[in-house]
Order: sequence, then structure tokens, then C-alpha cells
Amino acid sequence: MKLKGRSFISTQDFGAGDLEALIQRARALKHDPPRSMPLAGKAVALVFFNPSLRTRTTMELAVRALGGTTVTLNVGTDSWTLEHRDGAVMDGGKTEHVKDAARVLSRTVDAIGVRAFPAMERLEDDLADGVLEAFKRHSEVPILNLESSLYHPFQAMADLMTIIERRGPAAGAKVALTWAPHPKALPTAVPNSFLLAATRFGCDVMLARPPEFPLPDRIMEMAERNARESKGSLRVVASQAKALEGAQFVYAKSWGGLLYYGKWDEEKKARAEHADWIIDEGKMRGTADAFFLHCLPVRRNVEVSDGVLDGRRSAVYDEAENRLHVQMAVLEALL
Amino acid sequence: MKLKGRSFISTQDFGAGDLEALIQRARALKHDPPRSMPLAGKAVALVFFNPSLRTRTTMELAVRALGGTTVTLNVGTDSWTLEHRDGAVMDGGKTEHVKDAARVLSRTVDAIGVRAFPAMERLEDDLADGVLEAFKRHSEVPILNLESSLYHPFQAMADLMTIIERRGPAAGAKVALTWAPHPKALPTAVPNSFLLAATRFGCDVMLARPPEFPLPDRIMEMAERNARESKGSLRVVASQAKALEGAQFVYAKSWGGLLYYGKWDEEKKARAEHADWIIDEGKMRGTADAFFLHCLPVRRNVEVSDGVLDGRRSAVYDEAENRLHVQMAVLEALL
Amino acid sequence: MKLKGRSFISTQDFGAGDLEALIQRARALKHDPPRSMPLAGKAVALVFFNPSLRTRTTMELAVRALGGTTVTLNVGTDSWTLEHRDGAVMDGGKTEHVKDAARVLSRTVDAIGVRAFPAMERLEDDLADGVLEAFKRHSEVPILNLESSLYHPFQAMADLMTIIERRGPAAGAKVALTWAPHPKALPTAVPNSFLLAATRFGCDVMLARPPEFPLPDRIMEMAERNARESKGSLRVVASQAKALEGAQFVYAKSWGGLLYYGKWDEEKKARAEHADWIIDEGKMRGTADAFFLHCLPVRRNVEVSDGVLDGRRSAVYDEAENRLHVQMAVLEALL
Repeated sequence: MKLKGRSFISTQDFGAGDLEALIQRARALKHDPPRSMPLAGKAVALVFFNPSLRTRTTMELAVRALGGTTVTLNVGTDSWTLEHRDGAVMDGGKTEHVKDAARVLSRTVDAIGVRAFPAMERLEDDLADGVLEAFKRHSEVPILNLESSLYHPFQAMADLMTIIERRGPAAGAKVALTWAPHPKALPTAVPNSFLLAATRFGCDVMLARPPEFPLPDRIMEMAERNARESKGSLRVVASQAKALEGAQFVYAKSWGGLLYYGKWDEEKKARAEHADWIIDEGKMRGTADAFFLHCLPVRRNVEVSDGVLDGRRSAVYDEAENRLHVQMAVLEALL
Repeated sequence: MKLKGRSFISTQDFGAGDLEALIQRARALKHDPPRSMPLAGKAVALVFFNPSLRTRTTMELAVRALGGTTVTLNVGTDSWTLEHRDGAVMDGGKTEHVKDAARVLSRTVDAIGVRAFPAMERLEDDLADGVLEAFKRHSEVPILNLESSLYHPFQAMADLMTIIERRGPAAGAKVALTWAPHPKALPTAVPNSFLLAATRFGCDVMLARPPEFPLPDRIMEMAERNARESKGSLRVVASQAKALEGAQFVYAKSWGGLLYYGKWDEEKKARAEHADWIIDEGKMRGTADAFFLHCLPVRRNVEVSDGVLDGRRSAVYDEAENRLHVQMAVLEALL
Repeated sequence: MKLKGRSFISTQDFGAGDLEALIQRARALKHDPPRSMPLAGKAVALVFFNPSLRTRTTMELAVRALGGTTVTLNVGTDSWTLEHRDGAVMDGGKTEHVKDAARVLSRTVDAIGVRAFPAMERLEDDLADGVLEAFKRHSEVPILNLESSLYHPFQAMADLMTIIERRGPAAGAKVALTWAPHPKALPTAVPNSFLLAATRFGCDVMLARPPEFPLPDRIMEMAERNARESKGSLRVVASQAKALEGAQFVYAKSWGGLLYYGKWDEEKKARAEHADWIIDEGKMRGTADAFFLHCLPVRRNVEVSDGVLDGRRSAVYDEAENRLHVQMAVLEALL
């Protein structure tokens, strides 16, 4: 792997072989914690525009387990609000430009992790992944995507690691990724990234979602190309039952309607109509005794029933734990 | 002591001998900082639902002084809001369940500290200590109570350590715990825990409070049993002067009226009528040159006068410092 | 240098020789990171009343690079709100007194860094630097000023270090400090401290500002005395062009109108009239190919144009990075 100095924005940035090697390394680290300190004397800034439990915890622990130190900055509360548009005349509410924040941090840390959810106001803006791209454009050190408008690559790596742990090879795994109900319109970063990673690793993916809830065209095109190249497959269906039938892994996740951007009241109605897309024990019986996956946080008894989350085939805590290990593997390779 | 792997919810969880041994260990650590690193490679998550100065500072320092690392999470700002009721249909404002937060953290840290004040809305809920109990129920690692609705055990341990430092044995110490005025209705966790610990250690406790401000029945019953078992005593009086007379230690603390739950306007009137319960130099003259105790933060010149807090018999900064040492002793014993 | 145990409130606290030695030490540390750990076993609390990116990051990293640990407290969110007036009857919104916070922290940490911007309500209060002075009055360990109402001494040290790096001796450097436009009325701490440090180091300083935007009289008097003693000079002009002419360093910074305190609507008009005080490439052509200085954060294209900030003579990222090094030098000397 020649990944030193690279950023990690999306799993698409790296070769399939590199991704697999990183997951193998993560599995090794899980059973045999690092004894050398490859990040000794190094620092990673963790810049959060949004809340986080898993990411915050596992990034801080991953860096320190490798001998490094972290500085965690919460944008807009303990740190300044940030403008990301180049050339902006900054006479409004934003107090600092990402250009300056990224350059300043580059002088004192060895990598910058960034969590920046979409604003969910204008679709074009969110598809441009503006904040993360601004950090990447202006930073002189690697940028680690801790979930952007479009991607959540560490989560996808942890998801695939969990599939491999449970099944052995990911290639050929029958995976259902299904839309789920939720009281709010959520970003598409997690389903986007899971779809990209699963197709990259050769899974046979069924994506089930109501017609009102497509994923971005660009993501779908990348995922289809991935599937062709990996000899996996990708099929989109409007029937959840069809996707679950024979599935070995069920990944439930809610996301907002790209067709409704900015019209969240209309979207809310569409969401309400599909409250029956909740994953429960009954539906799981239609699968091939599938393992259940979810990135967390999850709305219990809205997206998924307690019975499934707490059941013997739930792998959601493995996924969360594996965040720690994949992040260590990636930090080791990039820094 | 066989405390490895245990949680620390209340001083009632441990035997009196264990509590004394922990305080002796804390006193040893105070004069001779730890040289071994029993928490090396270990991590403690500190989950705060509420503000903190002493607890945050001394827990972070205690863990690190023993070689461990900390992850501090502020619920609802930098981390997700948390639902704690089992079986909840999570279609409201809460974004993650304590069940999932506790289980996820259990995978990557070795103990979870939790600060969760009461909501002060419904008395039954607050007496159930729901958030802390949910963490305890779902965590696979020890839970450390950093002040819950009902208990603040580390504070009580630091209080007793301070009494022992100043007097020698706690048994037989004449202690007055007195209600004090405050602009807000505060939780009972501190007086509850002090009462339980002081009666456990055999102090002769006089609890002075206006009739409108009882402590929870369950706490009073435990404290009475403690006093019987330790050959200490517990007496409740409505006269502050009576409690102070001959006291060797005066602990002032405000708390809200359990009888007024949810009717804070009425309670405010009751509080205003007792503004003269402030502890000042004049009142302290009626004691046996008592040491003054308070958990801090304190409303100066409302609960207690500057003269008392800044006077030669004030032990409030010792109490605060002793938090560090008792926490190290407990961490060492539990992890 | 006999600085052990001293606080660092303003560069005026130390002798000129000490300041120069600290900068020389910072330059040495920049090229040869510390190998000994003079802060091993020591802790520094960082108390923030206001947002911060550079200060938070570089203070945490500086302490740790020297072997120490940090505890970061955000006042009013994750820590308690703080009253600073001695003798206050605390029946209002403030939950803890600085007296208690400072004394408690003094028991468990070896220094306390404090960031406390002015309230911008009453000029007398802000000129008294009440919060920082209260911490200094009550702390038993050194106080490090991380930007108060009046001073930002670490910034000024980093500024002077940058001048020395670029030019060699600071004495005799032709420096223009110019007021700049900004959508908000900002504190004077940065221009105050830069003015004091530059005159201390013997620079020839031209201060350009509209008549409505003087700096505090007390600061001006100190700066004039500094200039006399260092054989530098200080001249105040109302013409920005005059200050820039022949300048080797241009420091742009916005600050609010002391004459308008509490009448920010009137002040806004005054600010709007001087929107042409923005520093752009055209104006920089009138200098002696000056280096451009700014403390950051900066309002791009309001205070300064992108062209200047991103140009070949911009030294703003050096200033930010030098914060780390001067802070290490000061920590090493004081603790």
C-alpha cells in the first residue's frame, strides 16, 4: 500500500486491494492491539460541525492507541463558525474561512478529521460536499472524512469488516440495503458509502426503497460500475420483501427524499406513508437468517424493532466497535 | 477488597470496610502520587448530561494520573440526545437510546462515568434515577456515578475523607447538615449521599431543614439503618440553631422541595421565606469551632457568607481536591 | 530568566530581555522540538469563556509536547457560568464564583489559562479586565492570559517572533498597524498587545485609524513609554496611506469604537463609512514590499482581500504556527 500522505474522503479513493488490506490489518489490530507507536509525536485535529458519539470516541481512542494526540474542535460552539465558499465576502455571520482553519491546523497537526453533515437546504450544494471539499482543497495534511454530506467511509469500512467477520469473503454475500422510516429527513452519506463499499467488495446487493427515496444518480452510477468490476451485482427494487428474501445481511437505514429538497413538509407525508418499512422480527424471518446491520444511532421501534436490534443476529455493536479498528488501520497507513 | 468490575452508583453499594479502605488509599495517594500505571491501555468515557467543573477536571486527571485515557462526551451538544426508557418508540426528539450508547461505549472503553441530574419534572421519575439505571442495566463495563438524580457518591467520599483529615475518626463526629437558601430548586443528590455516607461512618448527624424541605423517604430510611448499624446517630430538626449547637462540622447545602414538584412557583415562595437559613459567621460562633463543608459550586452570600467560605475553618477546597484522590482510589479498585 | 511561578497577563509583565529570550527559545523549539518533558506530571486547565481555534489547538499541543496534560473547560456550556465580582450576592444567573473556580483548580492543576473577551457593555468594566483579574487574584498557580478584555500576549509574542523570523532584528522595523473594517464591533486586545510588544521591541510603529476608533488611553501611554525606552517610535495617523508608505510589515485588525460603547448602532454607521479601509493588493503596492500580518480569524474581503491573504508576502500562517512555539517557551519558563 502506498497510501502515505493521502486523504480518505471516500472508499472510491483507494484501490479495492488497498481497501481489503486495510480491513485485514484492522482485523489483526482487533485481536492484537498495536505495540509500536507509529503516531508518536503526531497530532490529529477532529473538527465536528455536528454531534457524534461513536466517531468522536473511536477516533480519539484510535489516534491515542497508536501513540498520537487529538484536539477536538466543535465548530460554532467552542470553535469559530466556518465559511467554506472560496471568494466569499465575509460580512455575514461566519467568523472564519475553512481556507484559514485548514491552513492553520496544517501547521500544527498531522491530519484533520472533519464531520460536516449536509445543510439539507439546496440539493446542488449538498451534492457538491462543499465543506469537506474546502478542507481538502486548502489543507496541507491528510483530510479524514468523519461523515460528510455524501460519504461516511470509515463506517462503510467497519460495515464491510463486520460482513467479512461473520461470513468470510464479502464477495457473493447477499446483502439487502433497505430504506427505513424516521421522524426526520436524514442525509444519504451512510447508504451511499455502504453501497459503494459493498459493490466494491463484490457483494450481491439489493437496494430496496420507496420510489420517492432514490439515492443520488452519481452514487448509483459509481455503485453500478463497482459491481461490474467486482463481479458483484446491484439491483434496485421497490419491494422491501423482495430484497429481504434470501438475504444474508440486512442493512436498514433511513434517508431523506432527494426529490423533496427544501419541501420537508411534503416529504414528511411521504415518509409517514412508509412507516411500515420498519424492520421487525417477522420480516427478518423472510431472510436467510440474516445478520442485521445498522450504523447507529438508530430510532428504536421506528426504523427497527427492539427485537431485531437486541436479537441474536444483530451485528450493530460489532460494526460500532470495528470503527475503532478500521480507523487505526487507516491512520497507520496514511500518517 | 473485591471490587474489580463493580459499578459505583452509591456508597451503599460497598461495605463500610471497603469505603474506609478506599478513603485510606485516597489519603495515601494524596501524599504519594501513584507510580505504577494500573490504568495503562485503559480508557474511561465521561458522559455529561449537565455542566461540571470539579468532576470533569478531577475525573480526567484521576484517570490520566493512573495511566489511562479519557473521552469526554457532552450529551445533546457534541454527542447525541439520549432516550433512556426501555421499549420507547423513538419518534420524538431523542436521537439515540442509552441502551445503544452504553453498549457501544462498552466495546471500546473500560468504564463509563455518567452525570445525569434529575429532570425536576415528575418526582417518581427522578426517584427512579432512570438515566443512570439505564446505563447500568445496559453497560458491560463498570458505571461510575458522577452525580445522578439521587446520588453523588464521589462527593460523599471526598466529604468523609475531609472529615477524617481534620478530625481523625469520623465515628462520633458531630455533624450538622443544614438546608440553605438558593435562587433555584436544586437536586437532593448531594445531601442524600452525604447523609448516607456520614451515617455509614458512624457520625452523629443532625439534619436541619424547614418542614417544606424533606429528603426522600427511602434515603432517610437507609440513613437511619446506617446509623443504627454504625452506632452513629441521625436526628432531624426544624431548627438550624439547634443543629449547629456544638457541631464540629457544618455542611450547608440547598435542595428543592419534594412536596412542590412541578409547582416551582409555590416552592419559590417557601424558599424565599427561609432566606435567613444562610450560614454566616455569627451562626458559626454557635458551633464547637466547626469546620465548614460544602460541595461547591456555592451561591456566595445566599447559601453561605463570604466570611465563612473564606474563613480559617473553611474546608471546602480540601473537599474539592479530595475528589481527585478518592476517584483515583476507586478507579484503581474497580478497573 | 527568573520567571518560575509568574503569571502571564501582558507582555508588560516581563522585562524586554526576558521577552527576547523567550522568543529566541521559541525559535529554537520550532526547529528542534523539545526532547525533555519539563511538564511531566503537570496539568494545565484551559478555561474558555469564548470560542477559539488557534489558542485551543496550540495550547493543548504545547502542554502535551512538553509532557503535560490539559483539561479544557467551556464556561457556561460544559462548565458552570462564573461570577467575578468580589462580594457579589449570588442570587442571579451566575452559578459559581471565579474565586472558587480558581481556588479549586489551583488544587489540582499547575497553571490556568483563561480566555475572557470583554462584555462590550460598559467601557469601565472592560478596561478593568475583571474576569482575568479575578482569576489572577484568587489563583494559587500561574494564570496564562489566552486573550482577555485588554490583552492577548501570546498573540503579540507570536507576531514579534514572525517579524524577527522575516527581518532579523525587530528594532527599527517599519510597522504599520491599521484599523480594518468588520461587520462587528471587536475587542481591542489584539491591537493593544501588538502595539505594546512592537514598541517594546524597538519597532517604528505607525498606528493608522479613523478618528472614531482610538485605542485605550492607558495602552497608548504604555506604548509611548515603551517606544521611548526601546528607542523605537510610535506615531498615530488618520491616513492609512501614510502609515503604509514604506512599511515593511502591515498588521491589519478591526476593533470597536471605544467612543460608542453600548451604542453599537451608531458605531455601525461609523464602521460602514470606513469600509474602504480594507487592505488589498493595490494598497500593499504602496509599502516597501511589506509582509502582511493578521492574528486570525479574518473576515476575508472585508478586512483584507483574498489576494493579500493568499499572496507571497502573507505571514499570517507563520503567526498562527508561532503561537505553538512561543507558548511552549513560556510554559517551560513559568512552570
